[in-house]
Amino acid sequence: MPVTDPLLPVLDLTQSPVDLTVELCDLPSVSGDERVIANAIEASLRAYPHLTVDRDGDAVVARTTLGRDRRVVIAGHIDTVPVNGNLPVRRVGDDLVGRGTVDMKAGVAVALVLAADLSAPPVDLTWIFYDHEEVAAELNGLGRLARTRPDLLAGDFAILGEPTSATVEGGCNGTARVDIRLRGRRAHSARSWMGHNAIHDAAEVLRILRDYQAAELEVDGLVYREGLNAVGISGGVAGNVIPDEAVVSVNYRFAPSRSAADAIAHVREVFAGFEVEVTDLAEGARPGLDDPLAQEFVAAVGGVARPKYGWTDVARFSALGIPAVNYGPGDPQLAHADDERVHIDEILACERGLRAWLGTG
Amino acid sequence: MPVTDPLLPVLDLTQSPVDLTVELCDLPSVSGDERVIANAIEASLRAYPHLTVDRDGDAVVARTTLGRDRRVVIAGHIDTVPVNGNLPVRRVGDDLVGRGTVDMKAGVAVALVLAADLSAPPVDLTWIFYDHEEVAAELNGLGRLARTRPDLLAGDFAILGEPTSATVEGGCNGTARVDIRLRGRRAHSARSWMGHNAIHDAAEVLRILRDYQAAELEVDGLVYREGLNAVGISGGVAGNVIPDEAVVSVNYRFAPSRSAADAIAHVREVFAGFEVEVTDLAEGARPGLDDPLAQEFVAAVGGVARPKYGWTDVARFSALGIPAVNYGPGDPQLAHADDERVHIDEILACERGLRAWLGTG
Repeated sequence: MPVTDPLLPVLDLTQSPVDLTVELCDLPSVSGDERVIANAIEASLRAYPHLTVDRDGDAVVARTTLGRDRRVVIAGHIDTVPVNGNLPVRRVGDDLVGRGTVDMKAGVAVALVLAADLSAPPVDLTWIFYDHEEVAAELNGLGRLARTRPDLLAGDFAILGEPTSATVEGGCNGTARVDIRLRGRRAHSARSWMGHNAIHDAAEVLRILRDYQAAELEVDGLVYREGLNAVGISGGVAGNVIPDEAVVSVNYRFAPSRSAADAIAHVREVFAGFEVEVTDLAEGARPGLDDPLAQEFVAAVGGVARPKYGWTDVARFSALGIPAVNYGPGDPQLAHADDERVHIDEILACERGLRAWLGTG
Repeated sequence: MPVTDPLLPVLDLTQSPVDLTVELCDLPSVSGDERVIANAIEASLRAYPHLTVDRDGDAVVARTTLGRDRRVVIAGHIDTVPVNGNLPVRRVGDDLVGRGTVDMKAGVAVALVLAADLSAPPVDLTWIFYDHEEVAAELNGLGRLARTRPDLLAGDFAILGEPTSATVEGGCNGTARVDIRLRGRRAHSARSWMGHNAIHDAAEVLRILRDYQAAELEVDGLVYREGLNAVGISGGVAGNVIPDEAVVSVNYRFAPSRSAADAIAHVREVFAGFEVEVTDLAEGARPGLDDPLAQEFVAAVGGVARPKYGWTDVARFSALGIPAVNYGPGDPQLAHADDERVHIDEILACERGLRAWLGTG
């Protein structure tokens, strides 16, 4: 009796992606709890004989195997950040309002509708729906597939359905995090001259950050703006103690033309003489807009491409040598916001855009 | 059967203050848990007919009422900071080692022995043993007495038995704490230019602190060294967010010649243009060494007086118009230390010093 199995809701992939977005958002899918939605997606796609469906953990991969010369990968994550009283989805005017509408159930809905419908596309298609994007990088479902089933990720071009307001955003900046640690010597604050104040030593670190002029670098025709920022600072033992330690956590967003090693070398140069520890590091992705498939795609969806600043999983494709862009409904500024909401016309625009490019066999 | 009542241990006030220090340290007396030690002190003092004993909460006040022209108050707190595996007290060479030995059971032991023994001093004496010194100021037993039983604190001169290595330390610096709050605007750190980084704004606050030249002010013949220090800093929302707030907590230790209002005015001037919130404020105490009783006392115990830097309860006497000094066994640097230890000869020196001054009627 699968229809009544609560672990197997039925998704109607012939409906509008707008209605499907609502259904997908209302299924439980906070990171780590993707089993139900993955089951539903897998079962729904297995109903289409033109698709070969694989399951890996809570990731689902559906491929056409038409023997085309080229293969395009279209991917999106099925998990969301925690719900905060913002479900079920409400329709307010021309918006869908609620957790996941932007990041990124609307993009997933467009992909599912097209996966079901496009049985004879001009290129082979691989549709990837994956888990654990919103949590620690080592849990990321696309990363797991890249390690364990790289054959499923193979392709000539990839589109990640992350929110871009239905515009192509190429590549992404890389991101590095470092902790800059200042060390002093404790003393009672009534006799401060007996100690050495580590927080005071952070003055120069913050001055460097305040005065830093971030670069703008052109990569494959798009201009990437960098950023170097304190994202955290801590220090202090008690209200009457000269602190012996302070830590400034710095996030460097670097253009995709820099390697990870280049980025860290730059940070170390900026903070020469300070104790710098790298705590997180991920290269960006070049926009790859010199690729013919990318150019065809951009032309099909409106001819405009912008740089993507935030790090996204396009970098995982880039690391596999696959040019990749972001393209999906929703304002990325609203991702994770409690008032997350997507314009319905952006959902329909993305469906039209992808259909215009892939809908003719 | 009071002897076997566990709430009423018997203290032998005729023994050496060294042995009594050991007994006092081994009684439970972490702040908030002073009932047993207060009971023991009260009962022990009530055995002496030359003393009038009052009890207020877990504070005990014992007075002579000889009708002398002048009255000297000698006070000490009976609580300690939490034990950390450093009890019971061990005797190691010429030291007593363990929690409370320095801060300030040795000083309390000297006072108890003299309270019992000095039945005909040349001045009337008020011995105060009070609770809750090591915790929030509003709980302080001496402060409570000052509010509710100021008659018990009346006197012409006060000695606080806080550790001073058996040297007279006059007065104390005042202390003020302020929070300096920087406000920015959140943004995703991938698009940092959309926000305003509050942590970066702390650069100037830390520069001011780093470059600040603390004053040295002479008060009643003693030189007080001030200090202005960050004792805490915090800021940051997440590793990918431009922080909208940072707070620097600053502790100003100011000479007793400055009023609280002067001190805050100075801090506000130093941090002109910043948002400054006062979170704690206590005036210091002038050393009062121009008082004849103070001069007699200093002469009796060796003729040397130094400034006290740390804030102590002498300021509570000072606020009541009573000149007050610190004088007690133990190195104040070891107060609260896990290896807290007092030299036995400092305990005996304080006993001798006070006896030399007060022992003849």
